[in-house]
Amino acid sequence: MRRHLLSLSLFIAPAVVLAAPKNIIYMIGDGMGPSYLSAYRYFSDDKTTAEVENTVFDQLWLGMATTYPDDDTYVTDSAAGATALATGVKSYNGAISVNRQHVPIGTMMQLAKTLGKANGIVASSQINHATPASFLAHNKSRRNYDAIADMYLDYRINGKPVADVMIGGGTKYFVREDRNLVNEFKQLGYQYTDDYTQLDTITKAPAMMLLAETALPAKLNSGFDAMLAPLTEKALALLSPAEKGFVLMVEGSQIDWCGHDNDIACAMAEMDDFAKAVAVAKAYVDKHPDTLLVITADHETGGLSLGAAGEYQWLPEVVRKVKATGRSIAKQLKQAESDNAALALWTELTSISLTEEEQASLLATRQQDETALRNLSNQLVAKYSYTGWTSGGHTAADVAVLAYGKNAKDFAGFQDNTQIAKKLMQIIQQTQ
Amino acid sequence: MRRHLLSLSLFIAPAVVLAAPKNIIYMIGDGMGPSYLSAYRYFSDDKTTAEVENTVFDQLWLGMATTYPDDDTYVTDSAAGATALATGVKSYNGAISVNRQHVPIGTMMQLAKTLGKANGIVASSQINHATPASFLAHNKSRRNYDAIADMYLDYRINGKPVADVMIGGGTKYFVREDRNLVNEFKQLGYQYTDDYTQLDTITKAPAMMLLAETALPAKLNSGFDAMLAPLTEKALALLSPAEKGFVLMVEGSQIDWCGHDNDIACAMAEMDDFAKAVAVAKAYVDKHPDTLLVITADHETGGLSLGAAGEYQWLPEVVRKVKATGRSIAKQLKQAESDNAALALWTELTSISLTEEEQASLLATRQQDETALRNLSNQLVAKYSYTGWTSGGHTAADVAVLAYGKNAKDFAGFQDNTQIAKKLMQIIQQTQ
Repeated sequence: MRRHLLSLSLFIAPAVVLAAPKNIIYMIGDGMGPSYLSAYRYFSDDKTTAEVENTVFDQLWLGMATTYPDDDTYVTDSAAGATALATGVKSYNGAISVNRQHVPIGTMMQLAKTLGKANGIVASSQINHATPASFLAHNKSRRNYDAIADMYLDYRINGKPVADVMIGGGTKYFVREDRNLVNEFKQLGYQYTDDYTQLDTITKAPAMMLLAETALPAKLNSGFDAMLAPLTEKALALLSPAEKGFVLMVEGSQIDWCGHDNDIACAMAEMDDFAKAVAVAKAYVDKHPDTLLVITADHETGGLSLGAAGEYQWLPEVVRKVKATGRSIAKQLKQAESDNAALALWTELTSISLTEEEQASLLATRQQDETALRNLSNQLVAKYSYTGWTSGGHTAADVAVLAYGKNAKDFAGFQDNTQIAKKLMQIIQQTQ
Repeated sequence: MRRHLLSLSLFIAPAVVLAAPKNIIYMIGDGMGPSYLSAYRYFSDDKTTAEVENTVFDQLWLGMATTYPDDDTYVTDSAAGATALATGVKSYNGAISVNRQHVPIGTMMQLAKTLGKANGIVASSQINHATPASFLAHNKSRRNYDAIADMYLDYRINGKPVADVMIGGGTKYFVREDRNLVNEFKQLGYQYTDDYTQLDTITKAPAMMLLAETALPAKLNSGFDAMLAPLTEKALALLSPAEKGFVLMVEGSQIDWCGHDNDIACAMAEMDDFAKAVAVAKAYVDKHPDTLLVITADHETGGLSLGAAGEYQWLPEVVRKVKATGRSIAKQLKQAESDNAALALWTELTSISLTEEEQASLLATRQQDETALRNLSNQLVAKYSYTGWTSGGHTAADVAVLAYGKNAKDFAGFQDNTQIAKKLMQIIQQTQ
């Protein structure tokens, strides 16, 4: 590219050559198919106005991307999806930045580190879950959580781990009987806390914050107004001083998990949490124009549709009144002291008035395991809100590509998911 | 806009002011939600290559649009959707370019006619169905087919009907006992045929071709390799000589109908037919650069997903082998002389090997009405191809916006569906 500019300069008058952005914020809504973006718009709609207000996603929507893996299916998992988004190369389902022959594929964060940039990851899952893992490590299977966690420390570039800032859950994998990675990170100079109320004690990179044993709590059950947003803000504050800029990946990890459960209230709460983190990133770009923000998803989860069973209706007001995830509702209903208490609790948690038949079904299912009760709870919320689901797994839907800030236009239009990473890696190289 | 340009010209050096495109080709895939575009890509994929080839849709994909109506629901019907796409104003479900007070809203084709341009419509439905109707007529209900047909003739601008070229189905509504609109059109100088093999006899606009009593046959049952493409080509040939340019609307009407039936083989055949018409329009733009091509959908139908029931798989090869729509399969199975003949016919028409249980179910359902048999047939194809559906109706999904040619970039990014019509109407005015 430099050579190209040089040769051009022989023929045209000197012009202001705009350098590539110094900083990249890359946000991935796991499972966030296009229907989730539409749903969140109507979920957030101020009903007192005639217009439906645009969400922060709508404001930044520029393109679409495929999601298919290099496998004998068009439907990707989160590992293959993240591998494509982190390396620009497709692989098989389950792969953590390795190809079909299990050969490691270089990731954009490894590239950034090689070039002297700082890296950060923020996730609402454990930080060694498939999506963040594909940016920092290599493994033939996403399930090898311990080995992946080990690589976060052991894989060195210029003598240092790839990530300068790591925020999410995962003490289970980083403080193990056989190895205490947290202590090893501390020995390398990483500031550390596992206490959400102590974030202020973390003052500079490198730093690690593991705020839960595995994943952070589901937003809807957490009692927090926003979880990812303050963590994103923290990561940006820690990475901002990096002289050569930074690459920060923020994952809304649990949108996908709500989709797997076919739990629309859970999904909308996670979307809201992710949206608030996107707003933080957008505000950062406004203050630091030398930054590119790119937002996408690895795939769609659940086959979500707004409208179901022939009804020309979707009722977010039903969804908005649900106060807990289906998992939490099931657990609470199981623990209720009596059938009457369970029914009262259902009404308190969902505001949905069931028919006598549905009440009987709920009470009968209360005698089964929590999974059956969770499924029934989610089905009832779906029924009353006219939400459609086709699967407990992923689908091959294309996903939205949003971008903002410097070079945002590069991400407009239809593209293969590998193109997103390729363009980002080109930008990382250009800022050298 | 002109005033704006004038005032600007006081301050800046004169520049080449690019005029707006003379011609507009506006194509609407009824029910063509984003999943249909993804599905068609994998349906068309050449399995002998590692890459998945981009479709003509992928090549032109620039933006997304909302679909919600001005009604007490976020889920539109085709009438409200087409009203927004034809006038730039949202209305209630069922409205044919009238507002909630039943006051007519001016359409882009009426505007074009007023300004001396020519108009054309091509549809695979009857030409007075909701989508084309919203471009040419006004009615408080899409169901008033006769009144809408009457208005195609009676609504005059500068003494002439709004459309110069009309191609599709609908003799039932245009040749009635109480009124023969075809004869009246002929008296106004319209060339006419109701015979597909006689298209060559139609040599210039104004012209009308009603090629079926109501809708054209479903593509999958038709025996034609392409239906909309040659009709689009014909319309373009007839409109091309128009001195002040033209506005042509082409609807892939039956994508939606396949969606309502949850019939994936039917939907892919209609998508293929629509794609071939898009290719014709794209080639026209290449030869006539003073043309803008815009393609979108009014809404999504059926809650289609690629992957279902927890399976990380979608099998277009199963879909590709299905030789008839579910409606046609049901009819043929009902007419089979024996159960054995019915089972043999099933295999011949679908290439799907059923389990004994499924065979028994098929034979039992054969004793019921065709609708039950059609539903079962479509469910079996969905099951074996891992296709998901959530509804026999529409959903509130956003839809793709594709554009090509002059001013195409105006349609990039996220927009309300009314913005598409507003931009087109601005362009129509600017070419005056």
